[in-house]
Amino acid sequence: MATIEELNKTRVELREKLEQETRKVQELKGTAKREPIAKMSAEVVDSNPYSRLMALKRMGIVEDYEKIRSFSIAVVGVGGVGSVTAEMLTRCGIGKLLLFDYDKVELANMNRLFYQPHQAGLSKVEAAERTLREINPDVEFEVYNYNITTVDNFQHFMDRIRLGGKEKDKPVDLVLSCVDNFEARMAINTACNELGQSWFESGVSENAVSGHIQFIVPGDTSCFACAPPLVVATHTDERTLKKEGVCAASLPTTMAVVAGFLVQNVLKYLLKFGQVSYYLGYNALQDYFPTMRMKPNPQCDDTHCRKQQQLFQEREAAKPKVEVEKVEELAAVHEDNEWSIEIVSETTAEEAQAAQGDVPSLTHGVTVAYTKPVQQEADSSELVSNTELSLEDLMKQMQSL
Amino acid sequence: MATIEELNKTRVELREKLEQETRKVQELKGTAKREPIAKMSAEVVDSNPYSRLMALKRMGIVEDYEKIRSFSIAVVGVGGVGSVTAEMLTRCGIGKLLLFDYDKVELANMNRLFYQPHQAGLSKVEAAERTLREINPDVEFEVYNYNITTVDNFQHFMDRIRLGGKEKDKPVDLVLSCVDNFEARMAINTACNELGQSWFESGVSENAVSGHIQFIVPGDTSCFACAPPLVVATHTDERTLKKEGVCAASLPTTMAVVAGFLVQNVLKYLLKFGQVSYYLGYNALQDYFPTMRMKPNPQCDDTHCRKQQQLFQEREAAKPKVEVEKVEELAAVHEDNEWSIEIVSETTAEEAQAAQGDVPSLTHGVTVAYTKPVQQEADSSELVSNTELSLEDLMKQMQSL
Repeated sequence: MATIEELNKTRVELREKLEQETRKVQELKGTAKREPIAKMSAEVVDSNPYSRLMALKRMGIVEDYEKIRSFSIAVVGVGGVGSVTAEMLTRCGIGKLLLFDYDKVELANMNRLFYQPHQAGLSKVEAAERTLREINPDVEFEVYNYNITTVDNFQHFMDRIRLGGKEKDKPVDLVLSCVDNFEARMAINTACNELGQSWFESGVSENAVSGHIQFIVPGDTSCFACAPPLVVATHTDERTLKKEGVCAASLPTTMAVVAGFLVQNVLKYLLKFGQVSYYLGYNALQDYFPTMRMKPNPQCDDTHCRKQQQLFQEREAAKPKVEVEKVEELAAVHEDNEWSIEIVSETTAEEAQAAQGDVPSLTHGVTVAYTKPVQQEADSSELVSNTELSLEDLMKQMQSL
Repeated sequence: MATIEELNKTRVELREKLEQETRKVQELKGTAKREPIAKMSAEVVDSNPYSRLMALKRMGIVEDYEKIRSFSIAVVGVGGVGSVTAEMLTRCGIGKLLLFDYDKVELANMNRLFYQPHQAGLSKVEAAERTLREINPDVEFEVYNYNITTVDNFQHFMDRIRLGGKEKDKPVDLVLSCVDNFEARMAINTACNELGQSWFESGVSENAVSGHIQFIVPGDTSCFACAPPLVVATHTDERTLKKEGVCAASLPTTMAVVAGFLVQNVLKYLLKFGQVSYYLGYNALQDYFPTMRMKPNPQCDDTHCRKQQQLFQEREAAKPKVEVEKVEELAAVHEDNEWSIEIVSETTAEEAQAAQGDVPSLTHGVTVAYTKPVQQEADSSELVSNTELSLEDLMKQMQSL
């Protein structure tokens, strides 16, 4: 009788032979196996796995798509949400992925996307890495088959967040929490507060029909401990809440939607397009999507959160004043704008024509609101460029209104 | 030099050997390959692929989850949205899937979920069927590698919609359009109007950052031809719009969200929970989700649509009047209710207690609004059950108010 090790050796050999044969067929058919690609190309050919992503540039959505290769992301928990999250990032051509989980693939996971029955018994991170490398060999992987909440592992986890960037010894660009318990969320929260690391939290309800994502920027937004869930606030041991023979419900739909929202907002944040949602909920029964933004709690239990709040306020205070006001004004228009109310410009096309007269030298971020129409000799006293007042005087006048 | 056929034979043999070895390892490890399961069970064990789905019953979300095995669904187009849609339905344990596509897997598809590089060159329906059967051998498959828009294929396509149900010679329960062009959408629309077949349309924009799903019930809601897109209305040949060396952008995120919305609403419709959305949009840049419902166009170009409208109105008119009013009233509360305004019951717990007195025999769909509280000898003149008036008299009184 063969041992598991011997059988696994046979399997590896068989898999290699199968891959060789597959390659031969693909060569004959003129289709290629996915080889590493040194530089992303926008060329529209069937063999280019990046053509549909690079098209985001021509479509005017993303300015510099290739930059995605410079980012490193830690995904904590590669279950129903985390595995799909990692697959999306892999297919998008992310530079590097760090995967953390200590669970094994079971047939009971087959109601969610990603894992397949033949992987049952493998550790989730091992199974995920194998599949993801085959999908995109350009992505760099680091996988850790351990529980981040134990003392030793937590220290190692923090080190990998701090030093696991795409560039040597730089931090990762984002941490994504895709775990299914509060203890792990609190561990991620603690690490990110201490490191000042931005992260996304995600979750799906026990009845499988709602979920959410939340973007947490230490010091700027509410952290996970600022308004803790009841279980956390009461220091309840979650394990005591689990009943024998009872499990949470889950659906591949809800989990894929949450993973989709998560990675979409990660892409918007990293590649600078659209508006990043600070909180986006998904109520599947009604197809309702609440959004909100929460400020940090000055009495947060986490000392590092309070420290990050102080640092954030100091950074804000140090910013040039005009620019700060401008940014806040813009933010007010877009955030929490869930009814999608649009501000329609009252400037006519004629008014918006290029300025003809002298344009004053302006601080960065400030533009002239009205310019002199081309074919009109306007009353010069009405034009900003001809006024006797300085821009600062005008600003003061406006503020006093 | 071996031919493709010979190589493919070797691959099949190698794959079988590999599967044998894998089974041996799994037996030694005590993990099992996914064998067909005769009856869905709610047992919470690692080897049960349905435990998390059957938990929807205990959570009070779905009354009869096992019913999913009695449904048959046709998925037209198994690309970025359709493949993920088919995978979700497979993992949920749908009874039967009919897949239609005539495209091949290419490396250029690798920026979306589902297909893997080693499948490049295979037809999409063949690759999809293989993967899906391995994930869930309980699902029945019919796959068609052809273009539904040619005359012969269209007739066959219609026959499969009409006769491809889970029960022999019954129609499918739903058709899901996951195609990427208007010609195919119009073909599906034509078939479903003629057959009176409910279907879902789905789509993702060329710039990859928005998408939608739409539920179309012939005669009841607007069909695809009732308010046709410009390309259709002007009879433009889409192929003339494509430019050499230019392709549409796509993202795995947007496509998975659209597939998630699609299958979630399919599940709500089939298993009768939550509210089915008639139209749900996804604007990824702003995380904005428009909903709406459109009535059919009495001047629709499609004669079968106009006929279905007439049949629908006849069916509505034939319904018992009381029930019609009841249904419409309920619908008005939930539909287009995108601000999620809830109606809070003003009935107290005491008032809602089981009736004590005689309950009148009521028409189906009508219930007694107030019942006699248990521990209270109420003034009998106030109770419906003791009034001299018949229910019909009461209804008339109420209508005249």
